[in-house]
Amino acid sequence: MINIAVAQSGGPTCAINASLVGVFRESLKVPEIDAIFGSINGIEGIINNHLVDMKSIINTNNDMELLRQTPSTVLGSCRYKLPDANEDEAVYRQIAETLTQRNIGAFFYIGGNDSMDTVNKLSAYFAEHELNIKVIGIPKTIDNDLCITDHTPGFGSAAKYVATTMHEITRDSIVYSIPSVTIVEIMGRHAGWLTASSAVLHAMGETAPHLVYVPEVSFSEEGFLADVRQEMSKHKAVIIAVSEGIAVPDGVQSGVVDNFGHKYLSGIGKYLEDIVRTKIGCKVRSIELNVMQRCSSHLGSKTDIDEAESIGAAGVRCALSGETGKVMVFRRVADVPYTVVIETAEAADIANREKFLPRDYINSAGNNITDTALSYFMPLIQGDLNLITENGIPKHFAIHESVLR
Amino acid sequence: MINIAVAQSGGPTCAINASLVGVFRESLKVPEIDAIFGSINGIEGIINNHLVDMKSIINTNNDMELLRQTPSTVLGSCRYKLPDANEDEAVYRQIAETLTQRNIGAFFYIGGNDSMDTVNKLSAYFAEHELNIKVIGIPKTIDNDLCITDHTPGFGSAAKYVATTMHEITRDSIVYSIPSVTIVEIMGRHAGWLTASSAVLHAMGETAPHLVYVPEVSFSEEGFLADVRQEMSKHKAVIIAVSEGIAVPDGVQSGVVDNFGHKYLSGIGKYLEDIVRTKIGCKVRSIELNVMQRCSSHLGSKTDIDEAESIGAAGVRCALSGETGKVMVFRRVADVPYTVVIETAEAADIANREKFLPRDYINSAGNNITDTALSYFMPLIQGDLNLITENGIPKHFAIHESVLR
Repeated sequence: MINIAVAQSGGPTCAINASLVGVFRESLKVPEIDAIFGSINGIEGIINNHLVDMKSIINTNNDMELLRQTPSTVLGSCRYKLPDANEDEAVYRQIAETLTQRNIGAFFYIGGNDSMDTVNKLSAYFAEHELNIKVIGIPKTIDNDLCITDHTPGFGSAAKYVATTMHEITRDSIVYSIPSVTIVEIMGRHAGWLTASSAVLHAMGETAPHLVYVPEVSFSEEGFLADVRQEMSKHKAVIIAVSEGIAVPDGVQSGVVDNFGHKYLSGIGKYLEDIVRTKIGCKVRSIELNVMQRCSSHLGSKTDIDEAESIGAAGVRCALSGETGKVMVFRRVADVPYTVVIETAEAADIANREKFLPRDYINSAGNNITDTALSYFMPLIQGDLNLITENGIPKHFAIHESVLR
Repeated sequence: MINIAVAQSGGPTCAINASLVGVFRESLKVPEIDAIFGSINGIEGIINNHLVDMKSIINTNNDMELLRQTPSTVLGSCRYKLPDANEDEAVYRQIAETLTQRNIGAFFYIGGNDSMDTVNKLSAYFAEHELNIKVIGIPKTIDNDLCITDHTPGFGSAAKYVATTMHEITRDSIVYSIPSVTIVEIMGRHAGWLTASSAVLHAMGETAPHLVYVPEVSFSEEGFLADVRQEMSKHKAVIIAVSEGIAVPDGVQSGVVDNFGHKYLSGIGKYLEDIVRTKIGCKVRSIELNVMQRCSSHLGSKTDIDEAESIGAAGVRCALSGETGKVMVFRRVADVPYTVVIETAEAADIANREKFLPRDYINSAGNNITDTALSYFMPLIQGDLNLITENGIPKHFAIHESVLR
């Protein structure tokens, strides 16, 4: 008999709790697994020995259904980067102590590429010190920028939110008789996956988004203005999708000083809005989709949430088969009918790396997305959750804030 | 036999097209009504004789279902304020000419309190000039600030969006172990109805929003900081709802000069974020719900959309009964079971006036919403639309942009 531990890390998504359900539900089926511990605030909970007995928190199948439709990380999160063991071994010893003391034979870490670095380092440390503790990574990130895996849990729901919202913003933008430009700022510091997903509207017969700017393509103000003028000659209301991370001239985003005398951290949307207002002079608005794109579970993709649960469950089976230092990944077999299989990859090959949009997903002008990309995006946003509601609002599963501290 | 005309005006909502369906579907049933004209861009379409035959655009019941789930104004909108007839009669003559030339016996104007001013002025002008053209107002606004009516179509869906999104933002905000403040800026320049609706989360057992600031209560920076510190002593993650229109010291919002040398129009959320960062120094984020709160039809309230259609249909019956210069209004008979009846009010009593939150909806400290308000808000957000989707995204009904010009 062993116990297991699971933790959630990095920025919230709509699918992290579904992966937690996957680990939990699968573990319940396994006779060799006794207690299932949840670590509060990612790996910090292991370091600080702040664990909760998941079976005392998740009591029913209804709880699991609620968790599947609850955004963010029910166990809290962290942004903790594990030091190298040969530089600072103390924290490794603390982690090993918590895990051995609690008889934990497997640790599942749901997170992005920083978390996969933790999986890699911990599994290497345990192997070196002959501790029989398996460490398995379960991927998640709305950024979809993990290597090897076809896509990441959390991305499909975020993409569904972005596409649905862009569609609605398009309707909203077109109502007045005067020309206008609407700029929608979408998350993605280095990779344009989520911004590019807004182009699925083209499959709905929409001309919007008329322009799409991603970090993979170099950006120039002159090119941008020429693009906008060109689109304004064709459409009364021009809709633009832009990644928060496109490269703009140094200092531009931090050049504004506010009335308290400190720098104003305006986003790229406001920056482009200012360019359009100053250089073109038409009606212009910028919209930041902000955290809504990572927490709008009411628009969760059923495909995404189901896959997130499946890949969590697969992680448990992987650990039980004796593997460690692995990350669970999706391999896409076919777009139509959409088929994926779950495999494993070395955490070392995923940690600290990023995957960018393929060049053929971006048009030759570098200002929109090709139809080639749509067959990639489309399956990931299919299906709706059968939401449990109360008072007209989707219900959530939450641990009392005193437990989270 | 008469023809009728219908137009949509003011800022978009999720329910304006449902009211258009109400006018259209009811008119189809009436043998005395022949053509149903849609005016492009509100009253401007009447002035410019830019009308479309609605029967050539809406062909099936499925079209009507799609329109019901399509946000914004399918016929376009305007912000046109009709001058007084004794100051500038020319535009009245143009309007009368279009309507008589097209044999239009009734004009339905779906809009806010500016549009009700148009209803009032036009009906008076037609009566004075013995033109038998009935003018009826159909209310709409997410601001819920029209007098006499219990609530306005469009508000319920916006409130459902705000409450659902605040719920999800609450989950998103609580994940890290460090204290934080999250400020959510909600529409409402003069009235706090929509901001206040976020407090329905209290009925879900949430402590958030911990603070709610509305324009009806005077605001002070000192009071705000004291409130935030007080809530931070109780909660790790403090969530604040604030109306865009709360009164802040003169010049504060326009005091920031951007890198182009012109004034930076930052919103109230950014302003409060700066105060918290500077004076308290904790992690702080502001989120502007922006146009999503008025166009997120995927979260439409079934109650709202059904009522919007009903009140449009009632407008047609009202005109046929010989009334003019009236606005259709809701009177609430009971909260439980929720019952409303549709009545009429004088457009003169609604035009250019605003309705504010009752004092007993706001707590004595002026920084949150009372439970008394919840029984008012709750029925308005009930029920979900049975959305027609395509490619995983809710479908919309749209007129080709060339028709809108």
